[in-house]
Amino acid sequence: MHGRIQSPAAVLSELPADLPEQVARALREDIGSGDVTAELIAATAQTQARVLCRQPAVLCGAPWFDASFHQLDPGLRIEWKFADSDRVPAGSILCEITGAARPILTAERTALNFLQLLSATATVTRRYADALAGSGCQILDTRKTIPGLRSAQKYAVRCGGGANHRLGLYDMVLIKDNHIAAAGSIAAAIHAARSRSAVLPIEVEVENLEQLRQALSAGADHVLLDNFELDTLRAAVAFNRAQPRPAMLEASGGVTLERVGAIAATGVDHISSGALTKDILAIDLSMRFGTPAS
Amino acid sequence: MHGRIQSPAAVLSELPADLPEQVARALREDIGSGDVTAELIAATAQTQARVLCRQPAVLCGAPWFDASFHQLDPGLRIEWKFADSDRVPAGSILCEITGAARPILTAERTALNFLQLLSATATVTRRYADALAGSGCQILDTRKTIPGLRSAQKYAVRCGGGANHRLGLYDMVLIKDNHIAAAGSIAAAIHAARSRSAVLPIEVEVENLEQLRQALSAGADHVLLDNFELDTLRAAVAFNRAQPRPAMLEASGGVTLERVGAIAATGVDHISSGALTKDILAIDLSMRFGTPAS
Amino acid sequence: MHGRIQSPAAVLSELPADLPEQVARALREDIGSGDVTAELIAATAQTQARVLCRQPAVLCGAPWFDASFHQLDPGLRIEWKFADSDRVPAGSILCEITGAARPILTAERTALNFLQLLSATATVTRRYADALAGSGCQILDTRKTIPGLRSAQKYAVRCGGGANHRLGLYDMVLIKDNHIAAAGSIAAAIHAARSRSAVLPIEVEVENLEQLRQALSAGADHVLLDNFELDTLRAAVAFNRAQPRPAMLEASGGVTLERVGAIAATGVDHISSGALTKDILAIDLSMRFGTPAS
Amino acid sequence: MHGRIQSPAAVLSELPADLPEQVARALREDIGSGDVTAELIAATAQTQARVLCRQPAVLCGAPWFDASFHQLDPGLRIEWKFADSDRVPAGSILCEITGAARPILTAERTALNFLQLLSATATVTRRYADALAGSGCQILDTRKTIPGLRSAQKYAVRCGGGANHRLGLYDMVLIKDNHIAAAGSIAAAIHAARSRSAVLPIEVEVENLEQLRQALSAGADHVLLDNFELDTLRAAVAFNRAQPRPAMLEASGGVTLERVGAIAATGVDHISSGALTKDILAIDLSMRFGTPAS
Amino acid sequence: MHGRIQSPAAVLSELPADLPEQVARALREDIGSGDVTAELIAATAQTQARVLCRQPAVLCGAPWFDASFHQLDPGLRIEWKFADSDRVPAGSILCEITGAARPILTAERTALNFLQLLSATATVTRRYADALAGSGCQILDTRKTIPGLRSAQKYAVRCGGGANHRLGLYDMVLIKDNHIAAAGSIAAAIHAARSRSAVLPIEVEVENLEQLRQALSAGADHVLLDNFELDTLRAAVAFNRAQPRPAMLEASGGVTLERVGAIAATGVDHISSGALTKDILAIDLSMRFGTPAS
Amino acid sequence: MHGRIQSPAAVLSELPADLPEQVARALREDIGSGDVTAELIAATAQTQARVLCRQPAVLCGAPWFDASFHQLDPGLRIEWKFADSDRVPAGSILCEITGAARPILTAERTALNFLQLLSATATVTRRYADALAGSGCQILDTRKTIPGLRSAQKYAVRCGGGANHRLGLYDMVLIKDNHIAAAGSIAAAIHAARSRSAVLPIEVEVENLEQLRQALSAGADHVLLDNFELDTLRAAVAFNRAQPRPAMLEASGGVTLERVGAIAATGVDHISSGALTKDILAIDLSMRFGTPAS
Repeated sequence: MHGRIQSPAAVLSELPADLPEQVARALREDIGSGDVTAELIAATAQTQARVLCRQPAVLCGAPWFDASFHQLDPGLRIEWKFADSDRVPAGSILCEITGAARPILTAERTALNFLQLLSATATVTRRYADALAGSGCQILDTRKTIPGLRSAQKYAVRCGGGANHRLGLYDMVLIKDNHIAAAGSIAAAIHAARSRSAVLPIEVEVENLEQLRQALSAGADHVLLDNFELDTLRAAVAFNRAQPRPAMLEASGGVTLERVGAIAATGVDHISSGALTKDILAIDLSMRFGTPAS
Repeated sequence: MHGRIQSPAAVLSELPADLPEQVARALREDIGSGDVTAELIAATAQTQARVLCRQPAVLCGAPWFDASFHQLDPGLRIEWKFADSDRVPAGSILCEITGAARPILTAERTALNFLQLLSATATVTRRYADALAGSGCQILDTRKTIPGLRSAQKYAVRCGGGANHRLGLYDMVLIKDNHIAAAGSIAAAIHAARSRSAVLPIEVEVENLEQLRQALSAGADHVLLDNFELDTLRAAVAFNRAQPRPAMLEASGGVTLERVGAIAATGVDHISSGALTKDILAIDLSMRFGTPAS
Repeated sequence: MHGRIQSPAAVLSELPADLPEQVARALREDIGSGDVTAELIAATAQTQARVLCRQPAVLCGAPWFDASFHQLDPGLRIEWKFADSDRVPAGSILCEITGAARPILTAERTALNFLQLLSATATVTRRYADALAGSGCQILDTRKTIPGLRSAQKYAVRCGGGANHRLGLYDMVLIKDNHIAAAGSIAAAIHAARSRSAVLPIEVEVENLEQLRQALSAGADHVLLDNFELDTLRAAVAFNRAQPRPAMLEASGGVTLERVGAIAATGVDHISSGALTKDILAIDLSMRFGTPAS
Repeated sequence: MHGRIQSPAAVLSELPADLPEQVARALREDIGSGDVTAELIAATAQTQARVLCRQPAVLCGAPWFDASFHQLDPGLRIEWKFADSDRVPAGSILCEITGAARPILTAERTALNFLQLLSATATVTRRYADALAGSGCQILDTRKTIPGLRSAQKYAVRCGGGANHRLGLYDMVLIKDNHIAAAGSIAAAIHAARSRSAVLPIEVEVENLEQLRQALSAGADHVLLDNFELDTLRAAVAFNRAQPRPAMLEASGGVTLERVGAIAATGVDHISSGALTKDILAIDLSMRFGTPAS
Repeated sequence: MHGRIQSPAAVLSELPADLPEQVARALREDIGSGDVTAELIAATAQTQARVLCRQPAVLCGAPWFDASFHQLDPGLRIEWKFADSDRVPAGSILCEITGAARPILTAERTALNFLQLLSATATVTRRYADALAGSGCQILDTRKTIPGLRSAQKYAVRCGGGANHRLGLYDMVLIKDNHIAAAGSIAAAIHAARSRSAVLPIEVEVENLEQLRQALSAGADHVLLDNFELDTLRAAVAFNRAQPRPAMLEASGGVTLERVGAIAATGVDHISSGALTKDILAIDLSMRFGTPAS
Repeated sequence: MHGRIQSPAAVLSELPADLPEQVARALREDIGSGDVTAELIAATAQTQARVLCRQPAVLCGAPWFDASFHQLDPGLRIEWKFADSDRVPAGSILCEITGAARPILTAERTALNFLQLLSATATVTRRYADALAGSGCQILDTRKTIPGLRSAQKYAVRCGGGANHRLGLYDMVLIKDNHIAAAGSIAAAIHAARSRSAVLPIEVEVENLEQLRQALSAGADHVLLDNFELDTLRAAVAFNRAQPRPAMLEASGGVTLERVGAIAATGVDHISSGALTKDILAIDLSMRFGTPAS
């Protein structure tokens, strides 16, 4: 636990380039032609607010939260008690905001909407990551994300201890049955894909061990074993390990917190689940106002 | 149940003006520098796909789904079996898409991401609306929404039988304790707000019956009764009805499917819940590919 | 009269969220590929400029004026002698700008274009508001605005002592004859509209007292009496006041400075006029350059 | 008078590249999260509407009007009875719109706002152009324009028979007293400017005949004679004509419809007036609905 | 050689999502407030134009060329004689455009600017690819690209027979000396990077064989051998092949058409060169106008 | 040679208004969802970097370079040893950057991409300008530019001692054979063009001396002599000088560094060449990292 002043610039390098735009868009949709209640507050009024987290959570979204306030008023001071990725006990004060009352009240909802959403994803990912601790298997996200916020959610998955699958259609080849049918064979599909980019990883989604065999012999970097039984997963792992150049194996389908440990025990490298990003149970946050410290 | 070809233009009037931008943004974040797997499919290949809904749901998001495909290829043909707001049984085919295979495969995930998200909100709203059926009380949404998609989620709430609370900070005055403290009294706050707009509705959030009395005598249009016990809600309703110009009463706090009927039975006009839009349990959809009908 | 340094951030809460974009767009259309005359001025030259108002006016647009300069050079210092909404005598110095000469010269025209436009709207609105002083009746704007600047003009109307009618098609239901014909009756139209939003005010435009009766009995919040004779307005007011839940009555049509007092005397609550925002007589401003104070 | 179907594409070449964006922005600010009254009209309803012009005017803005409807629904059919630049008698029907009722009602106000604004500028410009007919002198606009709509207003000036002064700070050098002081002399300022662009016209604003002499001998392309008396204007014209390479002379200051003929009679080439674009008296238009022709 | 009508939609899947925006931006910067020469051509005039390629080249940019015309006028008909990636002899007609004369003249320069730029990159890449033919070694691009056009240039490299290196800072880890110093060792840097994404390839830039050894033993997917002598490259290849899991080896530095074959002969998998995209020798194209075919 | 701290604001007046957008776009395309290697560097690490120029060059692009860093982190300190337009010897240090290591590493490539591109254009332009020194003839650019960067390249041409031809289709009339054919004659085309704008320069492209004669008698401001032999150019110059109001003569076609002196010696005013902006030989720059000065 540590106090710090979050500077948006200082963290921008490793954050999505569209973070400022995501925040600006959210502020615009909430403020519209002007906050009609803000005028009830004197322009010179100062205030202090604290964000309370009412449930155990993994914090995520501080840079979005900060930007929500700083895009309105760069002079607001935000002091964090926790950092993104930290586990936060129920009842914790996450941060304190001090400064002009109007922009704090105006940005409050937008800032909390980001924080409760991204912390939700980090928190649920953390549960899966904890269930896999020690197994050598990683939990991965998917492209089943909230439209317009994929880069933010991918960041949240990392904060929760997960790792990212491909960002979109552009940074990895994922060959499915449609593509195999079109190319004629798994080998033909992999060969066609390899010529496009020297560095794009190639994954093949397979339905059985015979397809796995074809994918491996054609040089797939990753193989997605979709809806395989545990026994078949074990056989796939064994077969893969016997290859001169084994691929990374990813299991998907029927992934729940209860089953994830058993899936990992088969020896697969990755388990992916759409639930990390398509389902949201917003973390319960609230903002409490007080008198500014002097 | 009815077949139709959805034309984006035909429904645009009552839809959010930023719908096309929401869809374009989602496509951009997924396609990036190009769908690296699309080239495995012949440019001239045609296909047919069906969207299957694997659980009972209220459909919502067809215009976003359609736009996802039509922004890539206006020539794709989409025939819907259900319309937004329809209750859909588990196992239903929602629509059929026919046309060029590449754009169908490229837009698939984006289109489904919108549909599973917005149908989730419509479906959960429908459950609350059903629980209130016959009570004369409406379920309302809040500003606790997914950043960047508020207008879409507000539409989904309407599809689910709910009604919309304010859109943002600009279209309604909602006076909270900060504003009351700043203005000096509830009456002073209402008076100051009234002069800004002739048509803006004014709501006051109150904590007890005395504050309700002040809000009513100052002419509030709506009063938000936050975290009131059922007995106190009943007293508030009775007091309000005895006024020459009663306000609309809204209850919030501790709203669950189990409790919502009892809250409505107190006689309040509206019940609002952040859960409609901040929590998401994506509807389980999948796309099945076949041979195009000729 | 008071001196102050305008900080864009400090006033943003109650201002349109698109203010920065309105200013950026105006600067871009004026500067284009670069101010070709600016290079004649040394990059290090400092200057001081004063804005002179050559006619009596109500000031409006200071935040837009400030942003025009500060988007080019945040280091420019602007000291205002008047604030938005202030009545300004002819010949007044409105503000002084001190700093680098190039950005001051480059932004001058854009800044003045905003100020002369918005002050024009505030000034004409003030005349109507003065004519209504003491009547209890408010002057309202309409949707007849300059494309792209509605939120700015709505703000100017408030600065002139008027109040805002609806912002757009999204924040109020205004039922006209087309809608009544489509719905079958005024009552049916109001009922259909009410279910969409719990808080959207509903107004009906009526042509005669019988339609007023129908609108009131169906629970309209506002009624627009378009082109009513003064006698009929008086009858409408009397009828409305006799209702258990009277609506707000708005008169429109044939509104001039000469007639507005007589219309208000009928007892209507609001008078709306498109002329506030669709006609512009730019306030006569000029910038005078001098030596910077040291 | 002629009937035609306006196609946005067919006229785009000579129209501002930001026309589509100007229209999209205006539609967005009016429609926001959706036209709440549109749902009262059946999605399948068709209608026909006519635009009536209640005063004599010069038509301007048809491409903006058309785009307002076609961005919502490309299927709407618009038949014009007049073309931009045409003189229109009071009481004329300008065009007929046929198609789906919802998009017609939704875009109505935006389309009319453009048409009444741009026709206002064309109409007032036409009055000045008529007053100059036969004089060989042209009426010019200035940079005193409505922020965000300069290119549209410059087009309107051309439709009214005026000619355009510079578009912005980037396409012409206009040397004023600040620049002369900075450069040391008129000649030095012109010389410095000439090196930037081979084709940029150079204009010098002068206050007396001696400055005119300096500007001419330094090779100015245009000279702006600001607030000159008529006698001095005549002397300036005579002096200029006696030069080997006369410049174009522009008079400004105190330009009214009453005086403009006398100013032209001095022999100046151009007269510029900010009033063409900074003052707006919207043309009185209305839309009448009927049954669609079949 | 084959005739076809290029439809933007049909190829969009595998093209950059920002293609339409790249084209719109280019048209806007060229057209500005309107093509002032277009009005000299009758609005109804039709024309036909052919694009002539005056030097041997590899065609690239047809979708950008098409979009330049179709964004102005979707009705223009463009018939291609060659497709992207085709080798084109000097003196070839690339395509014919038929339709309205104004939009063809207005878009001509923008369309050619894209075509001459992207064909230049494809053509130079082709030379390198040809020099590597049969070697099993691929030529790769870098991040040394024209700002704003990276995705287009990456596409051009593929059309020329090259393969793409990483798209940007987000889709591959490239560990350089700064990162090694910060992490403490190559192994520590690779380990830290691996946890972020399960699918991101990891490359290490090394300066000598000892660093190569460290990179390989830490599991690097790719190793960049910067400015290695040919002998050292051969030693690196031999060492790598002796590993249980060899990495892909990339050579860079001092890459010229003359030396590229010798570098490939060392056995490296990839050779990268910034010259493919940072240097441009525009292909010599011109448009010839004729009478439209009837 | 001089040290200075570049402030983006201080130079913005005469720079393109879209400079910040050009830089933001370039950063976004490189950073995407986040710089995956940045996290290997401690968030608190500081560094110092120097930009080395490995070949003789004319510096251009410092404001773009600065903005690339300052948009990520306004706190970075950049000290320049040279200014735009300066001739820089091979081996020079151009500037030093001091501050947080992460944003410096993240922005490095984008900043260098701008600098190497724009300095390339300035450098090649300088060679032409030097070849014309003392001749009174200026080298001009064309519209053959890199899409999206025209304003930046036009600035680079000025830095290299060239002058700008028209910016786009909107700021000058350039009458070519298509327009002459459509208008009926050169005189008719010039007359039609003159009425649009009072200040737009008019140029006519001619193919022979007879057309030159027509253009001059019709009052063309500039005449473009395309692909004229040297003798014919001399005849054209003589004929033009004999006119009462000579035009500016521009030669184009076959312009090389070898021939440009001879073309200038014919007495033409301007020589234009597409090669200045359509061909790019990026200047060889690199960034060297060190320990920050304390």
